[in-house]
Amino acid sequence: MDIIHTPDEMQRWSDSVRALGEKIAFVPTMGFLHEGHLALMREGRRRAGALVASIFVNPTQFGPSEDFARYPRDFERDCEMMEEVPVDAVFAPEPSAMYAPDAQTWVEVTEVTRGLCGPFRPGHFRGVTTVVAKLFNIVKPHIAVFGEKDFQQLRAIQRMVADLNFDVEIVPFPIVRESDGLAMSSRNAYLSPQERERALALSLALRAVRDRFEAGACCAEELVQTAKCVLRRTAGVEIEYVEAVDSVTLERVSSIDRPVLVAIAARVGRTRLIDNTVLVP
Amino acid sequence: MDIIHTPDEMQRWSDSVRALGEKIAFVPTMGFLHEGHLALMREGRRRAGALVASIFVNPTQFGPSEDFARYPRDFERDCEMMEEVPVDAVFAPEPSAMYAPDAQTWVEVTEVTRGLCGPFRPGHFRGVTTVVAKLFNIVKPHIAVFGEKDFQQLRAIQRMVADLNFDVEIVPFPIVRESDGLAMSSRNAYLSPQERERALALSLALRAVRDRFEAGACCAEELVQTAKCVLRRTAGVEIEYVEAVDSVTLERVSSIDRPVLVAIAARVGRTRLIDNTVLVP
Repeated sequence: MDIIHTPDEMQRWSDSVRALGEKIAFVPTMGFLHEGHLALMREGRRRAGALVASIFVNPTQFGPSEDFARYPRDFERDCEMMEEVPVDAVFAPEPSAMYAPDAQTWVEVTEVTRGLCGPFRPGHFRGVTTVVAKLFNIVKPHIAVFGEKDFQQLRAIQRMVADLNFDVEIVPFPIVRESDGLAMSSRNAYLSPQERERALALSLALRAVRDRFEAGACCAEELVQTAKCVLRRTAGVEIEYVEAVDSVTLERVSSIDRPVLVAIAARVGRTRLIDNTVLVP
Repeated sequence: MDIIHTPDEMQRWSDSVRALGEKIAFVPTMGFLHEGHLALMREGRRRAGALVASIFVNPTQFGPSEDFARYPRDFERDCEMMEEVPVDAVFAPEPSAMYAPDAQTWVEVTEVTRGLCGPFRPGHFRGVTTVVAKLFNIVKPHIAVFGEKDFQQLRAIQRMVADLNFDVEIVPFPIVRESDGLAMSSRNAYLSPQERERALALSLALRAVRDRFEAGACCAEELVQTAKCVLRRTAGVEIEYVEAVDSVTLERVSSIDRPVLVAIAARVGRTRLIDNTVLVP
């Protein structure tokens, strides 16, 4: 497994792989890998001859009051896990190799980033789309795999790829869950044992939504209230939002008359968690 | 010469050229070609095995009160001129092939677009950097040639390329002038014979600046006033700005103690013209 630290070296690596006619799959991550990341990597492995993963905690997608400094990091353990997949090349730059002091270019996707997490994390999606545009130009992949846990991020990236004509196929991958239902996330590491128990409320709320939907409920407001009731039942869970939106435009809907994303963001202690499900009528 | 109308077809053309190990040079234009464009294309020709030019009057870089609708177009004549270079492939999409109705992604370079033409053409540079990012992803060039007449555009694109890690070498090319000094521009076609005469004031003003600089003047304000005096002497020339700025950051300078861009924008009748020169101490 090659470990690469500079954009230039990564570009030359990918050029040489492309010159052999090999397809490159790419999985961008912020590291502190879990089974969810590994599932994305295995999907990339399956779809291409060469597999690149990146480990980069991107400062520009964190707000000033967010958890950039304390975001969990363990590069050695990450490398051991990636060897197992196996990953062919890891791109792990320092922030200074990614952002020049006079950098001043932003890639911004406007509409799909407006709702859901947008108002709660100003600048977040701009940071994400900018760094993913950079990573695509550095890694030059044919396909890139993104998890559906960060559903709004997935839609922003799909929009960016279409709008800016990136010749990269975006492969969405279903949420990977712990055996009790909790969506896997590097931020789960922040949870105390008690918080870990409480965090189950998110997936339980979505389970309740699915059950009601399957029992015939198709009013968006009713389903949102169903989720909120479950969440409110658990002490120490503070709802940021529960929304039902069109699964493509992410605009609010009033009924489930097309594929609808039901998305939750909530705080459990200091930890912000998200989860979602798509209802297809 | 291949004439290509869709992004997808262009990407496949470039893929096949790259698969042969051939280098691609690219010259993006809005068409209505003149000797200035052809000089850029010949430079591209010289530097790479394959040469692509685009002809696309990009709607997103025109303000609502600007000349998008009446911008001069003559695709047949453009093709004849490009055959002569020769250009290998012309990318000439319809606006609908470039912008989906729900397109919502912008590439924005903040600092170098703030001054000079920035305040006079709100949204212009955002339109330019967005379409050039798209064109780079569509044409996949190794190098791209840009004229120094649009100096601020050149700097915005260089910044974007560096900041977003586009693996494209940007080649700047000096301004090409008519024999009497007028900088070549497709918009010169708007000028009546009398306006064509008056338009000379811009290059004469820059000539006067160079003369004074070579005679020892190095105060930016004095050189700016020198240019303004020449421009004011000509009836029918309305100054938009004359500025002396650092040739890299485009920030205003007070003296010519490093390479300094002296840039002019002025209206001659309804036609907006720009010209510039770089003073190197």
